[in-house]
Amino acid sequence: MKVLFIGDIVGQPGRQYVAEVLQELLPEHKPDLVVANGENATRGRGLSSHSAEELYDAGVEIVTMGNHTWDQRQIFDFIDDDERIVRPANYPAGTPGRGFTVCRVGRREVLIINVMGRTFLSTIDCPFAAVENILKEHPHIKHIIVDMHAEVTSEKLGMGWEFAGRVSAVLGTHTHVPTADARILPGGTAYISDVGMVGPRNGILGMKRESVIRRMRTQLPAKFEVADGPRQFCAVMMDFDDESGRATRIDPIYRYEPDA
Amino acid sequence: MKVLFIGDIVGQPGRQYVAEVLQELLPEHKPDLVVANGENATRGRGLSSHSAEELYDAGVEIVTMGNHTWDQRQIFDFIDDDERIVRPANYPAGTPGRGFTVCRVGRREVLIINVMGRTFLSTIDCPFAAVENILKEHPHIKHIIVDMHAEVTSEKLGMGWEFAGRVSAVLGTHTHVPTADARILPGGTAYISDVGMVGPRNGILGMKRESVIRRMRTQLPAKFEVADGPRQFCAVMMDFDDESGRATRIDPIYRYEPDA
Amino acid sequence: MKVLFIGDIVGQPGRQYVAEVLQELLPEHKPDLVVANGENATRGRGLSSHSAEELYDAGVEIVTMGNHTWDQRQIFDFIDDDERIVRPANYPAGTPGRGFTVCRVGRREVLIINVMGRTFLSTIDCPFAAVENILKEHPHIKHIIVDMHAEVTSEKLGMGWEFAGRVSAVLGTHTHVPTADARILPGGTAYISDVGMVGPRNGILGMKRESVIRRMRTQLPAKFEVADGPRQFCAVMMDFDDESGRATRIDPIYRYEPDA
Amino acid sequence: MKVLFIGDIVGQPGRQYVAEVLQELLPEHKPDLVVANGENATRGRGLSSHSAEELYDAGVEIVTMGNHTWDQRQIFDFIDDDERIVRPANYPAGTPGRGFTVCRVGRREVLIINVMGRTFLSTIDCPFAAVENILKEHPHIKHIIVDMHAEVTSEKLGMGWEFAGRVSAVLGTHTHVPTADARILPGGTAYISDVGMVGPRNGILGMKRESVIRRMRTQLPAKFEVADGPRQFCAVMMDFDDESGRATRIDPIYRYEPDA
Ligand SMILES: [Fe+2]
Ligand SMILES: [Fe+2]
Ligand SMILES: [Fe+2]
Ligand SMILES: [Fe+2]
Ligand SMILES: [Fe+2]
Ligand SMILES: [Fe+2]
Ligand SMILES: [Fe+2]
Ligand SMILES: [Fe+2]
Repeated sequence: MKVLFIGDIVGQPGRQYVAEVLQELLPEHKPDLVVANGENATRGRGLSSHSAEELYDAGVEIVTMGNHTWDQRQIFDFIDDDERIVRPANYPAGTPGRGFTVCRVGRREVLIINVMGRTFLSTIDCPFAAVENILKEHPHIKHIIVDMHAEVTSEKLGMGWEFAGRVSAVLGTHTHVPTADARILPGGTAYISDVGMVGPRNGILGMKRESVIRRMRTQLPAKFEVADGPRQFCAVMMDFDDESGRATRIDPIYRYEPDA
Repeated sequence: MKVLFIGDIVGQPGRQYVAEVLQELLPEHKPDLVVANGENATRGRGLSSHSAEELYDAGVEIVTMGNHTWDQRQIFDFIDDDERIVRPANYPAGTPGRGFTVCRVGRREVLIINVMGRTFLSTIDCPFAAVENILKEHPHIKHIIVDMHAEVTSEKLGMGWEFAGRVSAVLGTHTHVPTADARILPGGTAYISDVGMVGPRNGILGMKRESVIRRMRTQLPAKFEVADGPRQFCAVMMDFDDESGRATRIDPIYRYEPDA
Repeated sequence: MKVLFIGDIVGQPGRQYVAEVLQELLPEHKPDLVVANGENATRGRGLSSHSAEELYDAGVEIVTMGNHTWDQRQIFDFIDDDERIVRPANYPAGTPGRGFTVCRVGRREVLIINVMGRTFLSTIDCPFAAVENILKEHPHIKHIIVDMHAEVTSEKLGMGWEFAGRVSAVLGTHTHVPTADARILPGGTAYISDVGMVGPRNGILGMKRESVIRRMRTQLPAKFEVADGPRQFCAVMMDFDDESGRATRIDPIYRYEPDA
Repeated sequence: MKVLFIGDIVGQPGRQYVAEVLQELLPEHKPDLVVANGENATRGRGLSSHSAEELYDAGVEIVTMGNHTWDQRQIFDFIDDDERIVRPANYPAGTPGRGFTVCRVGRREVLIINVMGRTFLSTIDCPFAAVENILKEHPHIKHIIVDMHAEVTSEKLGMGWEFAGRVSAVLGTHTHVPTADARILPGGTAYISDVGMVGPRNGILGMKRESVIRRMRTQLPAKFEVADGPRQFCAVMMDFDDESGRATRIDPIYRYEPDA
């Protein structure tokens, strides 16, 4: 089974570039499943139903989230009904939406889990225990993808090593910068600390860099807006063994447009 | 001018592997200058004089530091006298050691600056203002390397873009995971969000992963020790134009030993 | 029922002063139960069995803890066996010790719960959910004391208001500074944001102030030691209705020795 | 010289209650100077010119600020011109407004300084160095008040002890809960860790408690609004020696309306 996982998609430029790149990638690579992190898809913060539809139209089948899940208030209207959207599973019991979803890919079921780190991020429940519990509820599923949305590398690596050999992939998101450590951990778990971002390449995390830097230097409030200019696309393409679910390959895909 | 910059070196395995890899790299690439981040060189925390000597013997000429600068108390005995060691420049006035150093490379002078980010890291002075001030004091130097030791990608990218065209390189350290975003920013500034780590590849940030994970899951105290097993080497090789100091090339170097 | 709750006891001076003050207070006020926070009782960090015995000898019957619970490694040897020690209940399942204890006071049972805040403190489970669960398991107990060990006032006030009318008392600890907001919340819940500290009065949080200030100003590492000099005692004396468990009174007790 | 310092004033209820209480307090106590923290005066966040005028009309002469200084964008229009408003002095050079102000009280000059802590609060310059520098620039002024706006007690106590004997008062603000540790530090410095808040007494930090608690328990976004109901007033009344500027007295003033 071939799975394409796309990193945090930022704003209209990110959604648009995903559509453009997938038009080339899908016919060429024919992935069996396309997952993308959509927590920044709408104006850099959250996910509107319109943005979700755009991602689905582009070929994305499952959308994972993160700390920006609730930034577009509209999401409360559709997150309970749309089984393609997965928000961090370690939010408290009773949180709208779902922390994992199961989708059918050919004859196989794939379990997609989203969890969020706690260090410097959110005061929520343990992401390790959350994954553990979800795995226990689905002992028969062999193809399992964990989107570990976290700030620090130690927590992401911890998740990767703790579930190495027990899930098909642990993929980091949130920092918007792709890491160069993609590998197969012992037992057949595809791992990368951060998949990276899809969006404006010359901003800071996809946002206009002037405001971000001004705020850092002056400590005054600043309005952050999605940047424009050339765009980048960050994803990983993985192969999972059809029978065992073990990952046999993880290849980063990093494309970008040249500067004008 | 060819410059090799090596990421955070972790413990004895890191020091040893640096020595081994440099024995191959130096004759092959003949860099004019070798800089390395040494904040974790001694048992994963700080830098003893013995470890510093080992790094110098291996071919490292300048050692930058970070939040672990003071972890080996012995450093107070030699940091004032050893001009090859650079600790974050945005520590308060009066801090032992130096925040930048100037070294001669052929006919050229190279200014090496170390600064530290503040987000989720240290309650210290502004790293942007610190670099600004050091640049003002050295208007004649054209070859300038900034080691931006920081936790979050936004602060590193901010430093890169803010000084793009004004320094030869802004290189991130601290997360111990190499990023895949090495590039030349407009104006000729080599940039990478994190150079990565030299040390045990199957630990977490170079430390034994069992303790790190146990602490994350149990929240109980744990003793962190440098891991063993196969090692990795992370660095970037850069070319700076001899006249202008502008970077023309930045190539990540990522080597590692296979699993047994 | 009359209950005396004593704030964080710091080091030998704190233990000694508790003993001295209780020798006066106990005969005078005759509380039915004496509880104290002991997370700093041994050299300012953690609780040894020796220190625990000293507190028991002084008249303390139940000892609550906090983020320093594990600082004395020896505690792992006795926390499972000593039912008088209560550590934060929102540590993960499987944590040594207990998050609540039930003790008999005359004909009544009293439930003492310790929870810890998460904001700027610990990456642990939800303290609100933890209290909720413990209450559910003890529907018959009417006298309930919650030690809310937390950094920020909002989280402490949140705990107080959320369980107002459902527990006898929500008492904040951890900041080592007594607050002036002791009151009975609607429904009969005694509340104070922080009970304060027992220990050296002219240190900073009970530690020698020179080291603490030097570290703040220089950002260099510093060894923190329990201060000496005049001492202070911070506690609250409460009355709970015997039948309903509702608090009818909370009086801060703040004693200190004059400067020499 | 008699100085009244009022803690963080929250929203319209806070401004209104300040006016009501001062109508009684001013004739009764006849303070020579009235200072108040106004960072939450407008809808709980920031300070509009309208709110500032209301405070002046009520009798407040100097308004200090904190981390909410810039929340009302309108402040950029008048903070440079209004010498009665003091924002944290340890913001970077070039920040609008001023970090201290000098006002004439009878024959004396009084220097009022606002600084902000860094622990868990803001990535700004050192508050200790900021105070030090301002003192150096005003060697002739003997009556000096420092509003230390900070989250943690250690940083506030550090500021108090570091400048004990060098300023007339170090008064903590920001946590909105009054502390019970008002005292005169050696050398004649009035100190309190937090003056407390003026505003709705049954909210959380002055805001409607339902939203605050819901956010803590669900981690979902919530709109925070100023609460209503009975109000509280927190301040300290101090006496400074006219010649030496040394504090001779600090008395907390805590008033509140009964529950309906
Ligand atoms: Fe995120
Ligand atoms: Fe994101
Ligand atoms: Fe570091
Ligand atoms: Fe490091
Ligand atoms: Fe504590
Ligand atoms: Fe404590
Ligand atoms: Fe504040
Ligand atoms: Fe405030």
